[in-house]
Amino acid sequence: MSDAPIVRPLPVSGFPEWLPEVRIVEQRWLDTIRAIFERYGFCSVETPSVEALDVLLAKGETSQEVYTLRRLQADADDDSARLGLHFDLTVPFARYVAAHFNELVFPFKRYQMQRVWRGERPQEGRFREFTQCDIDVINVDRVPLHFDAELPRIVHEVLTTLGVPPWTLNINNRKVLQGFYEGIGIGDPLAVIRIADKIDKIGATGVADLLATQAGLDAAQVRACLDLAAIRVSGSGVVDEVRRLGVKGELLDEGLDELAAVLDDLADLPAGSVVADLSIARGLDYYTGTVYEAKFVDWPDFGSICSGGRYENLAGSFIRRSLPGVGISIGLTRIFAKLFAEGLLTTGPASPADVLVVIPSAERRAQALAAAGALRARGLKVETYHQADKLQKQIRYASRKGIGHVWFPPFADDRAHEVKSMATGEQTAADLDTWTPPPAADAPTA
Amino acid sequence: MSDAPIVRPLPVSGFPEWLPEVRIVEQRWLDTIRAIFERYGFCSVETPSVEALDVLLAKGETSQEVYTLRRLQADADDDSARLGLHFDLTVPFARYVAAHFNELVFPFKRYQMQRVWRGERPQEGRFREFTQCDIDVINVDRVPLHFDAELPRIVHEVLTTLGVPPWTLNINNRKVLQGFYEGIGIGDPLAVIRIADKIDKIGATGVADLLATQAGLDAAQVRACLDLAAIRVSGSGVVDEVRRLGVKGELLDEGLDELAAVLDDLADLPAGSVVADLSIARGLDYYTGTVYEAKFVDWPDFGSICSGGRYENLAGSFIRRSLPGVGISIGLTRIFAKLFAEGLLTTGPASPADVLVVIPSAERRAQALAAAGALRARGLKVETYHQADKLQKQIRYASRKGIGHVWFPPFADDRAHEVKSMATGEQTAADLDTWTPPPAADAPTA
Repeated sequence: MSDAPIVRPLPVSGFPEWLPEVRIVEQRWLDTIRAIFERYGFCSVETPSVEALDVLLAKGETSQEVYTLRRLQADADDDSARLGLHFDLTVPFARYVAAHFNELVFPFKRYQMQRVWRGERPQEGRFREFTQCDIDVINVDRVPLHFDAELPRIVHEVLTTLGVPPWTLNINNRKVLQGFYEGIGIGDPLAVIRIADKIDKIGATGVADLLATQAGLDAAQVRACLDLAAIRVSGSGVVDEVRRLGVKGELLDEGLDELAAVLDDLADLPAGSVVADLSIARGLDYYTGTVYEAKFVDWPDFGSICSGGRYENLAGSFIRRSLPGVGISIGLTRIFAKLFAEGLLTTGPASPADVLVVIPSAERRAQALAAAGALRARGLKVETYHQADKLQKQIRYASRKGIGHVWFPPFADDRAHEVKSMATGEQTAADLDTWTPPPAADAPTA
Repeated sequence: MSDAPIVRPLPVSGFPEWLPEVRIVEQRWLDTIRAIFERYGFCSVETPSVEALDVLLAKGETSQEVYTLRRLQADADDDSARLGLHFDLTVPFARYVAAHFNELVFPFKRYQMQRVWRGERPQEGRFREFTQCDIDVINVDRVPLHFDAELPRIVHEVLTTLGVPPWTLNINNRKVLQGFYEGIGIGDPLAVIRIADKIDKIGATGVADLLATQAGLDAAQVRACLDLAAIRVSGSGVVDEVRRLGVKGELLDEGLDELAAVLDDLADLPAGSVVADLSIARGLDYYTGTVYEAKFVDWPDFGSICSGGRYENLAGSFIRRSLPGVGISIGLTRIFAKLFAEGLLTTGPASPADVLVVIPSAERRAQALAAAGALRARGLKVETYHQADKLQKQIRYASRKGIGHVWFPPFADDRAHEVKSMATGEQTAADLDTWTPPPAADAPTA
């Protein structure tokens, strides 16, 4: 122990970290998500955390949230100031596809599970560093529409398998919004989309105000926009609801056809899990068709837990090819942290070990290590206690870490190996070559 | 396609990214390493990528390599300028143990596999972003010496299992160096250790120069330092070699006892895999006992591929407790990238899929999707082709992605499902409920 000043050891606000027993659950979530993504044939891609700033800013409007880098001892020719941490996985993925265009097989279907960073003020559900799990498909010239349905289907399987509390995946189509806005004589539909996207935060009245004052819409136009945003229907009946508003146009028809096709494709999912919601706009400029946004049913104000959509021109910022794509992102850290905060995560042991091998005495340490080695060779996860402490102390160590079984190498040459179940307290003779831990009755399922 | 200017899509120099077929191998490596760490009972910890600068700089001398953060649109009260990306996993881990001291069970054994960042000029084997795989043990007051042997034993199992080309793990002990230097009358042993650590880069002559000019050693002292650094012995015979130099002292004895005990504990490992090398110093100030440094046998100039050691005071920067530790770090990206560059990585398919299900016709698409679903329900990894293209085209897609089998749903109601092995070309009737892919004969083993 030194007398040097103590540096505060807490992690920086907005940068979450977990205790081992929570991390084990997070790791299980990541394994589950990855297994499902791979079961659908998506391959893994990771991109650097750091991109050139002009890549990060090639599209979109999130520039104020980007963390830029600088070397602590930067000199005049330091180039790190033109680098930034990625704020999502979509832009880096589009850059990756452009960079490796000649080496990839299309349609290129990838999953990507990485941390992203945003220089935001931390609040509930908003972190400055968090993990996203994305699946995207990019193809040359055209991405078949059925991918717009396959991606939410995969996400549905993921959230169901993880045991996440009830959620709804809201779907809309940018062409419907744009076609509708054009059909009622609005000249800059994108400006209206950006305003309409705020309805969750500022409500219908707030949106109406902005549409009139900022976008210059007349009262009838404002009314029509709000009528459209109010439509929320399970299934392809949404088309009739929109038609009832009496607006016509080719782009609107195309959008409604696409929206209906995606909803029809997903009609077999449980009622309420996918809903057409015409208020969903997604602020990002790069979406051009289907857009997604999932929310918890019980916490409507918590914000989106998955989001995504179809983009036609994203990779086109980096290569002179038409490389449209569609993707969806699961906000892993947001969901996980919310469930943890609500006490809905079942945590288990603080150790991955199936069994703790005790050290009966200093003389029998080699024998204990050999026993541990034999169990490991059969694939078991085995911790050895570190020294020949009193048995009670060694058993208490297993108990505190939540290790399910304690292994006792023989105390004398004529004794057998024994194993104690920490759940039942039962201690029985056991064979090094055949013993396996029974599955824990109370093992967390998520 | 837009006419907007094209942004260069290459990743930034020093920030590696891999094609899907290489990423699959990297992922397999990470899975293998994690499985071995867990088989020894080490639990997973992840810490934020970002720490307060005063945490990162609480110990050590690597300040010039730290990337600091700044929000792109930073205002006057922006606090992000006091944040930096971690440059290793040891300092954040010590901070984590201090932060969660009351919630952890000691000795606390964790593994941590994360990216780290260093603002260095990129060169062979030196990246600015790379993944390290660390195992450390921290305990209250005292860490039993046998952990100093257990960690290299685990690393040995990892590197052997991965099939990494021959390497040597060099071991030394800081107490030997410090005790020896004190024994020949050197007043500032730490200054000499920092110089001695450069022997790989500047050679014995260069070190001799610096010892004389910078550290003020006389000719006999320089000679003795070089004699010590020249000692390189497999096994605990190292003690006699050091004794032969005729230097005495309590700290030296203690260090030699520790070094001999660790080497004895590891004596069962294959000859040459662990070697006592008295030239190993490790520049970092926080090491106090055992130090490790592994290198490739065939590429001695490539630098270290694993490193670590014992530290007494690291967590003490953050909490008024004595929390010594010992740890070792595997330089995953360095090793992986080197093997890739040398053509020593066996890459396989660019897809995780076991089988591609073709779409026989638009009408039979639903049936094909149902077949894919049935195979997935049995845990197989299944990609469905995206549209009813010509069969040849669908088969070529599987071939280009390296998918081992193609599944043909029936073309007519009276036909059976069939599966084609892409390796043999054989196509046979197959049962949706029982078929499993035979293990590939040429599956990469690493």
